[in-house]
Amino acid sequence: MDRERDALSIGELTYDANGLIPAIAQQHDTGEVLMLAYMNAESLERTLETGKAWYWSRSRQKYWMKGESSGNVQEVLEVRYDCDADTLLLSVDQRGPACHTEARSCFYRSLRQAPALERSGDAGDIPLS
Amino acid sequence: MDRERDALSIGELTYDANGLIPAIAQQHDTGEVLMLAYMNAESLERTLETGKAWYWSRSRQKYWMKGESSGNVQEVLEVRYDCDADTLLLSVDQRGPACHTEARSCFYRSLRQAPALERSGDAGDIPLS
Repeated sequence: MDRERDALSIGELTYDANGLIPAIAQQHDTGEVLMLAYMNAESLERTLETGKAWYWSRSRQKYWMKGESSGNVQEVLEVRYDCDADTLLLSVDQRGPACHTEARSCFYRSLRQAPALERSGDAGDIPLS
Repeated sequence: MDRERDALSIGELTYDANGLIPAIAQQHDTGEVLMLAYMNAESLERTLETGKAWYWSRSRQKYWMKGESSGNVQEVLEVRYDCDADTLLLSVDQRGPACHTEARSCFYRSLRQAPALERSGDAGDIPLS
């Protein structure tokens, strides 16, 4: 892959009808998926300018810098986008818990297992927080 | 965390106006984020029943089992949901490449780096496919 040649700019990504693009935040060294939130072009620009993750809050209809009240900021090391350019993957260094519940990751609960999944064996390679 | 007590069922998750919920697929042993696609309640039910990832294609408006044409199926080991219950994280065993481009992960490209990110150092802990 020639990453330089392929690289898109913020304006070339695919946003939804509300101008948003989902962004997955992944802890850069452990690989843990911490959260998913939404960005628009402006919050992505702020992210790239400051090196800290900025999102668009759909419920509050405003920009928020992750950790602006809790102090649990996300340093952003890299921003990748997928083959359709409609999802982002942020490689971050998360200070403290990512979740407002104080869990390290927002994904701390599992769906009730169906029989097919129980048969498929141990899924415990990546620790739950 | 009492995972049993907290566990929701399919109908208790939060779906968007189109009845969809984003689902992140992560390789269970390496932690690599492979792709993001969308599910509705029915595709999630098929996933839990079969142990293979089923999604809803927004462009084709139909169900698709990941790998049904390519053979690159995703065995699903666990389904987690986030604090808002509006995003899923699938722990999967991906056979072959996850991406239709034949890349292992759909996130094989990086945005043009902003100066702030270049200063923040080496982001290369998780290998690009």
